[in-house]
Amino acid sequence: MAWNTDLRWRLPLACLLLQVALVVLFGVFVRYDPDADAHWVAEKRSRNVSSDLDNEFYYRYPSFQDVHVMIFVGFGFLMTFLQRYGYGAVGFNFLLAAFGIQWALLMQGWFHSYRQGYIFVSVENLINADFCVGSVCVAFGAVLGKVSPVQLLLMTLFQVTLFAVNEFILLSLLAVKDAGGSMTIHTFGAYFGLTVTWILQRPNLHQSRQRQGAVYHSDLFAMIGTLFLWMYWPSFNSAVSNHGDAQHRAAINTYCSLAACVLTTVALSSALHKKGKLDMVHIQNATLAGGVAVGTAAEMMLMPYGALIVGFICGIISTLGFVYLTPFLESRLRIQDTCGIHNLHGMPGIVGAIVGAVTAACASSAVYGEEGLAHAFDFDSAKANWNASLQGKFQAAGLFVSLAMALVGGILVGLILKLPVWGQAADENCFEDAIYWEMPESTAFHPEDPTLKPSEP
Amino acid sequence: MAWNTDLRWRLPLACLLLQVALVVLFGVFVRYDPDADAHWVAEKRSRNVSSDLDNEFYYRYPSFQDVHVMIFVGFGFLMTFLQRYGYGAVGFNFLLAAFGIQWALLMQGWFHSYRQGYIFVSVENLINADFCVGSVCVAFGAVLGKVSPVQLLLMTLFQVTLFAVNEFILLSLLAVKDAGGSMTIHTFGAYFGLTVTWILQRPNLHQSRQRQGAVYHSDLFAMIGTLFLWMYWPSFNSAVSNHGDAQHRAAINTYCSLAACVLTTVALSSALHKKGKLDMVHIQNATLAGGVAVGTAAEMMLMPYGALIVGFICGIISTLGFVYLTPFLESRLRIQDTCGIHNLHGMPGIVGAIVGAVTAACASSAVYGEEGLAHAFDFDSAKANWNASLQGKFQAAGLFVSLAMALVGGILVGLILKLPVWGQAADENCFEDAIYWEMPESTAFHPEDPTLKPSEP
Amino acid sequence: MAWNTDLRWRLPLACLLLQVALVVLFGVFVRYDPDADAHWVAEKRSRNVSSDLDNEFYYRYPSFQDVHVMIFVGFGFLMTFLQRYGYGAVGFNFLLAAFGIQWALLMQGWFHSYRQGYIFVSVENLINADFCVGSVCVAFGAVLGKVSPVQLLLMTLFQVTLFAVNEFILLSLLAVKDAGGSMTIHTFGAYFGLTVTWILQRPNLHQSRQRQGAVYHSDLFAMIGTLFLWMYWPSFNSAVSNHGDAQHRAAINTYCSLAACVLTTVALSSALHKKGKLDMVHIQNATLAGGVAVGTAAEMMLMPYGALIVGFICGIISTLGFVYLTPFLESRLRIQDTCGIHNLHGMPGIVGAIVGAVTAACASSAVYGEEGLAHAFDFDSAKANWNASLQGKFQAAGLFVSLAMALVGGILVGLILKLPVWGQAADENCFEDAIYWEMPESTAFHPEDPTLKPSEP
Repeated sequence: MAWNTDLRWRLPLACLLLQVALVVLFGVFVRYDPDADAHWVAEKRSRNVSSDLDNEFYYRYPSFQDVHVMIFVGFGFLMTFLQRYGYGAVGFNFLLAAFGIQWALLMQGWFHSYRQGYIFVSVENLINADFCVGSVCVAFGAVLGKVSPVQLLLMTLFQVTLFAVNEFILLSLLAVKDAGGSMTIHTFGAYFGLTVTWILQRPNLHQSRQRQGAVYHSDLFAMIGTLFLWMYWPSFNSAVSNHGDAQHRAAINTYCSLAACVLTTVALSSALHKKGKLDMVHIQNATLAGGVAVGTAAEMMLMPYGALIVGFICGIISTLGFVYLTPFLESRLRIQDTCGIHNLHGMPGIVGAIVGAVTAACASSAVYGEEGLAHAFDFDSAKANWNASLQGKFQAAGLFVSLAMALVGGILVGLILKLPVWGQAADENCFEDAIYWEMPESTAFHPEDPTLKPSEP
Repeated sequence: MAWNTDLRWRLPLACLLLQVALVVLFGVFVRYDPDADAHWVAEKRSRNVSSDLDNEFYYRYPSFQDVHVMIFVGFGFLMTFLQRYGYGAVGFNFLLAAFGIQWALLMQGWFHSYRQGYIFVSVENLINADFCVGSVCVAFGAVLGKVSPVQLLLMTLFQVTLFAVNEFILLSLLAVKDAGGSMTIHTFGAYFGLTVTWILQRPNLHQSRQRQGAVYHSDLFAMIGTLFLWMYWPSFNSAVSNHGDAQHRAAINTYCSLAACVLTTVALSSALHKKGKLDMVHIQNATLAGGVAVGTAAEMMLMPYGALIVGFICGIISTLGFVYLTPFLESRLRIQDTCGIHNLHGMPGIVGAIVGAVTAACASSAVYGEEGLAHAFDFDSAKANWNASLQGKFQAAGLFVSLAMALVGGILVGLILKLPVWGQAADENCFEDAIYWEMPESTAFHPEDPTLKPSEP
Repeated sequence: MAWNTDLRWRLPLACLLLQVALVVLFGVFVRYDPDADAHWVAEKRSRNVSSDLDNEFYYRYPSFQDVHVMIFVGFGFLMTFLQRYGYGAVGFNFLLAAFGIQWALLMQGWFHSYRQGYIFVSVENLINADFCVGSVCVAFGAVLGKVSPVQLLLMTLFQVTLFAVNEFILLSLLAVKDAGGSMTIHTFGAYFGLTVTWILQRPNLHQSRQRQGAVYHSDLFAMIGTLFLWMYWPSFNSAVSNHGDAQHRAAINTYCSLAACVLTTVALSSALHKKGKLDMVHIQNATLAGGVAVGTAAEMMLMPYGALIVGFICGIISTLGFVYLTPFLESRLRIQDTCGIHNLHGMPGIVGAIVGAVTAACASSAVYGEEGLAHAFDFDSAKANWNASLQGKFQAAGLFVSLAMALVGGILVGLILKLPVWGQAADENCFEDAIYWEMPESTAFHPEDPTLKPSEP
């Protein structure tokens, strides 16, 4: 199809309109949290706090920076594995995340930090905005190389909105615990993205197949993304947990789960190759499934061996998914999942939700202590008449809500994105930076690509 | 011109002499701050502090590490976009920064941490030394590819000295606030570097033009630099702010400004291309202008929407600069600005200084609270009879001092560097690593460069 | 030799067996430290601590994440300099480290955190596990490109075990101070690795020589590793030091030593080239020797100028080693040291041990204060009747124990790895990813390598 991929007016207009709207909304609504406001001196006195260290900043800022790296370098470079879509992977991820965090500050702010007509932001809001955008980065992985930046901005606008609603239902209405976002971020993001790419299915995508593989150095760029995601995932899962033991425990559990996941991924990758060779796609992706799958339970008393078991299982599931399920989804269900997010975020996210529900349901005061149990699940305040078993049931409900929101939302957003006016590339021009980027003149190492059609029809 | 680029005696001598001098000066002058000295146990008692956490280390160390990454990976990789100057970009940046931080510890120490004949260093000094070197990295961007490492060491020696004097005038004599260094680091660094490159103008630089562009993978390396600068800029602008709310607020404001800047950069980049395509040069650079431009005001009550507006404007200014101003400067004013630092640090630095002056001048106890206002601008101690309006005027004065220091200093240093004895490359050999680096034998992907003259004449 | 390099059963079996064993052992032994346990609320009360900030997490977590980056990105990418072994460098480092940290948690836990039948883990254990694996990464550098992943898993299994025994002897029996691991990590790791590669010597390795060099972009990938190691080394050396001044001082000393080391490395690299050009191998490696060499003394009152002197010397020693010693070791002693770990970790590790012993022996209450001296060397509790001179002697003893453990252990482990059943590549197929990795179809920039034999004989 001869769609017009010249974005000269559409992309600038989209960016500027969205940014102007954000400025206006921030002007009306966003103010500093007391911990970030110049009245802090008085605030300290009124809270009877003596040290500046009790400012929320010092509890969460290092974790925030790690999460920030995961969103921009981690997700951005993870997707640079394609031989001719490195600019798009890093650059569009940068664009959608920069827009998304602003919109998420508003959407999540209205639901969770809204008082007296204002949204009060602190470092915790920044982390949550990054989390919200993380789910958009996940969904981006499904449509990578097949959509225009205008479509990505639209998808981000809608997905952040739906994310905030879903998160509000889970965290506030169902009182679910999901500090690392197995449900809210990964399950929601993955099934939303898969639904969108299913709606946007491209019948002749095989015409771009020669650009769907990696080259040697693009795989190394992708490993930068993989490793920063892997290394900082303990910060991701512990960033918004309760102060003290919960943050500490979440980091330990995530560390354990991820380590185990690497070994089973390598085992399966080698076992499934006819000559026992390893596949970089598995190493780049399935090694991370352990982080996804302890997202909900990491702050709970999962125990280190419990975390190892979760990682063990998810390395296997995820690698099997890449080998058997992705080709099946593409050929039979026409779900063209560029980065295999179903294997890295979809299935491990569901596993994470189930692990979280079971771990919560099994929580006992023998393991947590009376006070510890009440503190961990807020049974000491808002949910005074709850018990662990009930918590587990609500956790399970959260999974189904997330899946439903993802499917319904994905269909609606997919249909909007399907309109042939957003500058998407033709099927035979997918996975190609030259469509949306000014390319260096001397592309010495890629002398010519005879299959590439002229980028503007 | 047949300059001799063999550095066999000049570079080793320069490095060893400088390092020996530093060892001697450190021996005479540098000691540990009480927070880093083994007398800390007694120090705690005398300060009536019970917890080790009140050691300055815990307030600032995470920010220090982020700033450290910005200087070495951020600036280093940002400049790897040139197809044949990756070694020089990363390697010479490494060299000049490693020398510069030592010299900065001394220079800044004499001005700010000198007591009883000694300089007492703590983590705050390390951050400030990194900041000081940041301004040298900025200036390096203007002369990248055209100077020898000996020239860079000399430039660093002089620029760090001038930086420290300028910083002393601003922070101590004019009592200016500039925690993120819009004036001291960016404006000073940029106009210093532009003046130096103007003095060092190379009439036949067009002979090296074929190496001034990027190749595909060199652009991805540069994005590593861009993203680490972008992600850690909240730490940069908050690293030396007052404990508590000021650090917290500076991080939030910088986060907001940078996010807005990305969208307007993308908008302008696309709008200014005849087919609406994006230019990696803009994405790599102009997206960072928002961080520069809130350097002064980030710790003030700029408000999140104020930060968005600053980022909004600077993404536009900076991208316009790359498209229109850089070619103009080069063709008409003979200012050959390799990395476009005028667009990323020069203009946004001036904007930042103005925003800072206006924000300070408008500060009121209604917004800050009585105590907060006094605390934020030190009106409670040294500047007891100051008010916000006066502060604003002094802020504005700081900008002019910085510009004057940069221009005068840049001319003097440029003239010294112009002497034909420092091993600089000929005009036709610029932007080429082979001049100063032993190259890998099999440069498989760059088989030969017929335009390159023999590197030693 | 026609060894079979098909790992289809060996690698999966090794991974799965090891991981199952780890799950079982974790189930039996590993529990959360009180700071990471849900009983923290009660724990705080019993310790009379009011703030969650007194949780060990907040003292050490930022340093932990920096160390984590050094192990996985730092060591992983440092070894990507080989033109055809980038997957193996990053991927096998990832595998061995993920296995090693789990096994180290157990081994170190039994020696240091074992109480009432359980190992109690906190963030400090995670750091120490990373440290332990750091010594395996060092040894990996000696055998890089010449061993199979099965051999690496075995080597990790044994080396972590030996490391833990050696560390126990040094830290617990000899009461040595070695916070940054000059002896336990670097000296031990380097001489262990060198002994292993000596046992595994490959008589016809010259047949793979054409792949032992770098290409342009592989050198830039390696610089990512170098810089993250260099930047985060202050965290490495301060991560497990005493709270407060010791952590603070260790960071300052390491910062100084590393900065000086860069200048002398550049000086020597240029001086030793016949045309004064710089060699990327030196810049990538010798610049880090300063961090290794202050590993023991960084937390002591080494003084900033002392740190500069150490860095000064080690940049010289290390670069000289690359130029003269590595070829000598290879040709005369048949020690084939792929990454030159003897220059980066071996000699600087010994220097670090000596510097530590001398600094400890010279410690006086005039410099440390009475309390400070006792606190720094534990003379206030376990070692009440020790003095500085005695401490220095025990420090020296620690060096010899580490060397002996490395040599004896290296011989034993080398002999096990020499068995021709672990899937190692033939001499002419070394340094080649295609042996163990599925390669991208279009290796555009490396069209063909006529010297490569069919990978499966």
